[in-house]
Amino acid sequence: MSVPRAPERQWVPLDDRGLAYGDGLFETVLVRDGQPLLWDQHMTRLARGCQVLGFPLPSRDELDRLPGQAGPGLRILKLILTRGSGGRGYLPPASSLPRLRWQVMAFSPQPLRWRDGVRVRHCRLRLGIQPLLAGLKHLNRLENVLARAEWSDPDLADGVLCNSDGWLVESTCMNLFWQREGRLETPLLDDCGVAGTLRAELLAHLAVSEVKATPDVLAGAEAVWLVNSVQGVWPLARLDDAEGGSLATWPIGRAHRHFQAVAHDLLGYPVGFAE
Amino acid sequence: MSVPRAPERQWVPLDDRGLAYGDGLFETVLVRDGQPLLWDQHMTRLARGCQVLGFPLPSRDELDRLPGQAGPGLRILKLILTRGSGGRGYLPPASSLPRLRWQVMAFSPQPLRWRDGVRVRHCRLRLGIQPLLAGLKHLNRLENVLARAEWSDPDLADGVLCNSDGWLVESTCMNLFWQREGRLETPLLDDCGVAGTLRAELLAHLAVSEVKATPDVLAGAEAVWLVNSVQGVWPLARLDDAEGGSLATWPIGRAHRHFQAVAHDLLGYPVGFAE
Repeated sequence: MSVPRAPERQWVPLDDRGLAYGDGLFETVLVRDGQPLLWDQHMTRLARGCQVLGFPLPSRDELDRLPGQAGPGLRILKLILTRGSGGRGYLPPASSLPRLRWQVMAFSPQPLRWRDGVRVRHCRLRLGIQPLLAGLKHLNRLENVLARAEWSDPDLADGVLCNSDGWLVESTCMNLFWQREGRLETPLLDDCGVAGTLRAELLAHLAVSEVKATPDVLAGAEAVWLVNSVQGVWPLARLDDAEGGSLATWPIGRAHRHFQAVAHDLLGYPVGFAE
Repeated sequence: MSVPRAPERQWVPLDDRGLAYGDGLFETVLVRDGQPLLWDQHMTRLARGCQVLGFPLPSRDELDRLPGQAGPGLRILKLILTRGSGGRGYLPPASSLPRLRWQVMAFSPQPLRWRDGVRVRHCRLRLGIQPLLAGLKHLNRLENVLARAEWSDPDLADGVLCNSDGWLVESTCMNLFWQREGRLETPLLDDCGVAGTLRAELLAHLAVSEVKATPDVLAGAEAVWLVNSVQGVWPLARLDDAEGGSLATWPIGRAHRHFQAVAHDLLGYPVGFAE
């Protein structure tokens, strides 16, 4: 691909289908000193997205060059890949010329959330069911935006989402895991939700069952975590209902730390916290 | 609002939330010699969208100036209104500065489809249920793109969509109306779908019931139409299942023409066709 000139590198034209229809994908990659974390998982998800949406993935060489441009320290590489321009209305062009854009942002994780856990609420919004798009990190994220707009209290770290049939899915920007009777579980994401890269890596490293579960499972769990490849693992210290009433609290204990350590080891994050 | 300089007028920055999340709205307006058709309906839907998404509508003065820039003849004014840049991830900024962009395209309707009717199929894709976004013309349109990609036969004018509960909703880019036992009906759009401006105007002009209906209603109807504010009214001449088998055919008759005439009168399109 020819390198776009500034300002094109930071802009897309009005007829880009990513803007017009959300017809594209994105990845948000943690990069430490130019080395991407879970890069293969990000590329696997991006490739699957391209296959489902039906447009070509840029060459792996071209993609592999991006993280090195992030500079020293801890960074986020956000890449957006759209179907490009063209087509007639919703009809995609017979031959797409995808448009790849990226930006790099400084990033600091939140060690207090790692250590002390977080307070999380249930969202009122329920995710629509769309098996064709389930798992993908596509650009249609209005549901996440509306769910995240349900609260402004900075003490609430995230909100838990169910789908329109009432099954647990994820939080607005993280995946959910819990331990029940000693066993690790996470929602099956065959109807909606984003299949996170850290989630995928944890499924490969630990004995975790992907299950259909109702939201009451969380309050009864021995431990609950929110995870993603950027923030790492936040143990749940408290779960609220959508009106702010407390449903459950958890002391952060050994079970929490073991799971967190496995995940943080994958991201190069701290694994030990004073109890 | 200050008028953006070229090329900004035709571009959006990479951090625009319309691109990142589909966090915005659009309108596709038929304009004849600088005069917009159904302009009040378009502005009403846009205002409702802003209210639901929670960002301010540009001033009506600013919006009212756009159609006049479309030039002579029949044109499409496409306007895109996003929440703009900012916020933290999915969390919208406390105070949004929406970004308004527009483009004008030449347009020719399809008189043969008005006269002879169209062949339409059922889509395999089922629309996800999201009452919060139902009716809005927001930028999350991947379902429409995937549904439209189900066929490439140019003889198929459009595809009919049901939601994940199996109720009729719309076609990929038009609203559905039908006549059953002499009465006009159209799907209730409280779960998903786009509430078209011509649909709204027809509901105001004709006795039409908004109903929950299963797809088999179409094959049994006396007449079926696809309508939108740009293409006008296409009567259904034939309906296929998702595999291409014919479910029903209709001779285009007087009932078709009466409904079409009411709609076309609203758009300044022809109302009489040789039978």
